[in-house]
Order: sequence, then structure tokens, then C-alpha cells
Amino acid sequence: MKIVLDAMGGDFGPAPNVEAAVQVAREFGCEIALVGRQEQIRPLLVQHNTANLHLPIVHASEVIEMHDHPAQAVRAKKNSSMVVGMQMLARGDADAFVTMGHTGGALAAALLHLGRIQGIHRPCLSTAFPTVKGWVLLCDLGANVDCKPEWLVQFALMGSIYAERVMQIRSPRVGLISNGEEETKGTQAVQEAHALLKQAPLNFIGNVQGYDLPLGNADVFVTDGFTGNVIVKFAEGMKTMIEELLRAAFMTNLQTKVAGALAKNAIRQLMKQRLDYEEIGGAPLLGVDGVVIIGHGRSKARAIRSALIRAIETVERRVVDAIEDGLRNLPQNAAPVEHRG
Amino acid sequence: MKIVLDAMGGDFGPAPNVEAAVQVAREFGCEIALVGRQEQIRPLLVQHNTANLHLPIVHASEVIEMHDHPAQAVRAKKNSSMVVGMQMLARGDADAFVTMGHTGGALAAALLHLGRIQGIHRPCLSTAFPTVKGWVLLCDLGANVDCKPEWLVQFALMGSIYAERVMQIRSPRVGLISNGEEETKGTQAVQEAHALLKQAPLNFIGNVQGYDLPLGNADVFVTDGFTGNVIVKFAEGMKTMIEELLRAAFMTNLQTKVAGALAKNAIRQLMKQRLDYEEIGGAPLLGVDGVVIIGHGRSKARAIRSALIRAIETVERRVVDAIEDGLRNLPQNAAPVEHRG
Repeated sequence: MKIVLDAMGGDFGPAPNVEAAVQVAREFGCEIALVGRQEQIRPLLVQHNTANLHLPIVHASEVIEMHDHPAQAVRAKKNSSMVVGMQMLARGDADAFVTMGHTGGALAAALLHLGRIQGIHRPCLSTAFPTVKGWVLLCDLGANVDCKPEWLVQFALMGSIYAERVMQIRSPRVGLISNGEEETKGTQAVQEAHALLKQAPLNFIGNVQGYDLPLGNADVFVTDGFTGNVIVKFAEGMKTMIEELLRAAFMTNLQTKVAGALAKNAIRQLMKQRLDYEEIGGAPLLGVDGVVIIGHGRSKARAIRSALIRAIETVERRVVDAIEDGLRNLPQNAAPVEHRG
Repeated sequence: MKIVLDAMGGDFGPAPNVEAAVQVAREFGCEIALVGRQEQIRPLLVQHNTANLHLPIVHASEVIEMHDHPAQAVRAKKNSSMVVGMQMLARGDADAFVTMGHTGGALAAALLHLGRIQGIHRPCLSTAFPTVKGWVLLCDLGANVDCKPEWLVQFALMGSIYAERVMQIRSPRVGLISNGEEETKGTQAVQEAHALLKQAPLNFIGNVQGYDLPLGNADVFVTDGFTGNVIVKFAEGMKTMIEELLRAAFMTNLQTKVAGALAKNAIRQLMKQRLDYEEIGGAPLLGVDGVVIIGHGRSKARAIRSALIRAIETVERRVVDAIEDGLRNLPQNAAPVEHRG
């Protein structure tokens, strides 16, 4: 097993990437190639004990920055860590590519260099999402904004396979996000996707609504990338709002201040444990012809380690093959498809 | 001033409606007509001291139930409290109509009996939404699912007028919900709406993202009814999730249990005060040719009282007239419009 890690990706530069790579190489005995500026990576790597570990550095002089235009940057910065790493995967020099860098850049590089799995209309970006009942999968998060019904059906298929194989949820319940339970609710695209999903060989439980997500009333929540993106960012904002509200509540009077002092740590710890992306780290880009895991820009070593482990599991459990197989069993409208990868 | 209240609307039947009507009639000296089954309303009304108050009962034998199909029910149940009340408003026998009943039914009845303000493509349902900085306005909440760009522009105009006149926010900042700040982000409809909004005589601050809503980074948040509906319901679910999480945090050990006992009331009170729809009660249905306020089905007397007060303010501050005037100043694409009301 060989994973390529974009060592330049994320808000904290190469240090947490190198740290996570060393940990995972040691724990799992796999090879992790660190792609990026060798003059920055090498001094960090020598600070770790890397005896008997496979941690080659692959030099790439450029970095795709957050302000870069994804499609343009991927074409212009041919020697960026993102492009060089993705090309290694495309050539078969590696089994998976992991990055905490520019999400749009990763998507553009994957489309350009890997292409799509034959039969897939559009790849989708998924993430594990915290609920009262544990983690569920939400897709798409923004790779596709105006979605056709058959794309949504393919997201459902891919999400279901990932949830079953990597998150190890048996026969995952697939819900289609809409503005009402009835199949007559939703945009035109959602209503048509609903009709197709009823015929698909999936555990489709019908439309789900906004509140069903935090309550964990499905295992895979399918939506277009516009709605998915708004939801995920809204959840971030609401978390901040509730934290401020709690801070204010604990400042009400002497009694609540004492309570705050007593409970603050337990609350913080539980929030971190139950709501924090570091616990799960790394969203799979499903539908491209290879294993690509994209992590949050704010990832530190712990979250990067999670993303690397997700990559190993996604390779070992043959998610890409399973998607190829699954496509053959979809109702006709959802898998006509010439290869335009 | 004469308000018509759908006395049958809401999950708790006529009792809280009657109670709220008595309160508001006394506080504001206005007439409130109670529409519904007189055999249910009268025994409730006589329990209150109604001397010198104007609280006529208008008998209507039918009720639009939550499971009814809105458009069908509005046509079939001609003697429902919803239809009879809306017709009073349409005839000019009242200045506003307020209901805690079926939202879709209210929308259908308003379209059928009031029609739209001349020039308005589609009415939109708005609600006040709690943020760290106070209440903001979110529209649309589900009246329109697949939205054309010019509809979104009209929602922005109507929301801005309501925020300024009723919520008393000077020069309200209008944000268009999208999946990124840049004007190239969003669905096709959102991108086109962005271009139109830049030319509109509104305080348009550009695209806003999911996290901007709970953080209160605009005063009026404009989106299609699909996204708006998902957001509002997601917020409900997330509130439940956080409450469960807090309960769990307070159960961690003896110390946190003590903290819970000390702080629970302050937290509950602040949550209620800062996140609870009862504080604000009642969403205006903007764009129909009359003042219609629709409240939450779970409203008790306090929330119904808020909705009635919102109706009074919306009438007094001439929101319908202001929308008619505002339409004339919109960029051409947003206000071509023959009257199909």
C-alpha cells in the first residue's frame, strides 16, 4: 500500500502533514510519499524517528493557494504538490491521494488527471456528519451545484457503498433531502431523483427533512452541492452561536459562574468528541477513478492521521471497484453514460 | 384596525387563539374577529372578561387539517376558517389575517382570494431568525421551491421593506445565500439574481454563506424556498442535538451534575429567550395583496399574541404599499410582470 500525501496542504503547512505521515507509516507499515517542497519537508522529517519507515519525499516546487482559481491553477501550476501527487495516483504509482489543500483544486486535478469512473456523471464530495446517533454521511458538499436527478441517484449509490464499506454501516438507510416527506415535495430534480431512487437497489427510505440530519434519521443524506454546502457551513455557524450562548448563560450570576467552572471542561470535551471533524477527518471524493481523500484546511496532525487511515480503508475495501459494479444495477436513467472522463 | 384571527388554527385548537385575541384587543384597542366553529369559540370567550372589547365571532364550520392537500382543501372547504377569514380580508372587511394553521393552506387561500400585489411574481414566506446579534429575516421558507432569479430579487425587496418597517432595522443589509462569497458561486439562478441585485436600490452586501446566518452577518437572508426550508428545519434538529449533548455533558460526573443543577435554568431561559420562535411569533406572507401573518402550529397564546402584534405593525407601517412603490424602482428584469393574481 502506498499513499501520496500533499505535504503542503492545509492551513498549518507541512509540519502536521509530516507528523501524521510518520505516525501512520509506523502504525500501518505502509509507504507514504510526501509531495511538496523538499527544502521544507526534509528538515521536518529528520526531527522524527523514521528508521524502517517508508517516507519518500517527492519534490514539487509549487503550491495551489486558497485564493487560486481551481481549474486555472491546476493547469498553470503543473509542478504543484496537488498536481504532482494526483498524477502519481493516475499513473498507478500510488493507491490513494490525500490532501488538506484547496478542495476545488483537488476536484479539478482529479477530474483532469484521474477522470471519472466509467459511467459516473459527476463525482461528489462527501463528509461524515455528527448526529445524536453517531456519524452519518452527507453528500454532495459542493462539487456540483445545479444537479440533475440522475447525478443525485449516483451520489446515493456512491454514498451508500462508502457508508457500508468504510463506515461499516450494514445496509445504510439512504435519505433524499427535501422540503417535505411526501414524494411530491422538492425541486423538480429532487422529485425525479425520488422516483428513480425508489427503483434503485438501495435501502432508500424516501425524502428526509432538515431536522432528520442532526437527529441521525438516515445513514446517507443525499443532496445537491449547493444545499450540502449551505448546511455544513450553517452547522459551523450554529455551533459558534450555541457556544456564545452557553458562555453568556454561564455568566448570568454567581451560581452559574460556579457551574461554568465545574462543567466547562466536560462540555468542551464532549462537543469536541461529538461534533469535531478531527475525530473523523477526511472527506472522500467519490466517483473519480481512484481513491482521493480531501481533509479540512484547519486539520492538525490528528485529523490528517484520520484522513490517511480513511484512505487506507477506502483502498483495502475496494470502494472504487464496488462503485463500478454498483452502477450496473442502477435503474436505466441513472446510468446511461458515455465516458467523458 | 380590524384583524381576523383563524381561531381554529394551530395544534392546540381555539383556546390559545381566544386567549391571545382577548389580550391584544385589550392592549391595542383593536377589533379582532374570531373565525371558526362558534360552538367551540363562544364557551372559551365567555371565560374571559371581554367588556368593551371588540371580539366578534364569525362562524365557519370547517377546518383545514394538517393532512389536507392545500390547494384542494382551499377549494373544497369553502366554509373553513382559513377561507372565510381570508375572504373577509379580500373583501376589505378586515385589515389583516392571522393564522397558526396549515401554511400551505394559507398560501393557497391567499393566492386564490387575495391574489398577488401587482407586479409580484411569487409571494414569499419569511421568518425572523435568531442570531448571535439578534433577529434577522430569512426568506423564502418554502412557498417557492424552484426559483427564478427575478423572484429572488423580489424576495430581497420585500424582505428589506419588512425588516426596515416592522423589525425597524435601518437600511437592512441584504445577503444572497450561496455556496461561496464570489459572485461566480451558486446555482445559475443565484448567479443571475446576484447580478440583478447589484443594480437594485437595496443595501445588497453580496453572497453570504451558511455560517453568516447564525452569526447575523446580514439583516435579510434571501434564498429559494427549498434551501430556506431545509435550513430552518436543520436548525430545529441541531437545537435538539445540542440539548441532548448538554444533557450528556452534565451527566459526566458528580461535579458536572452539580453544575447542571446550578446552571440548567439559566441555560434553558437564555435558549428560550434567544432561540425561541415564541419571542417573535408569526411569519409574514409577503407579496400577496393584503397583510397575512402565518404562525407556527405549535404556537401557544404568547406566540399568537406576537403574531397579532406583527399584523398590527405590518398594517400600520404600510408594508403592502411600500412593496408596490419599491417594485417600480427595481431593475427591469426583476419587475416586468403582467398581473396574473
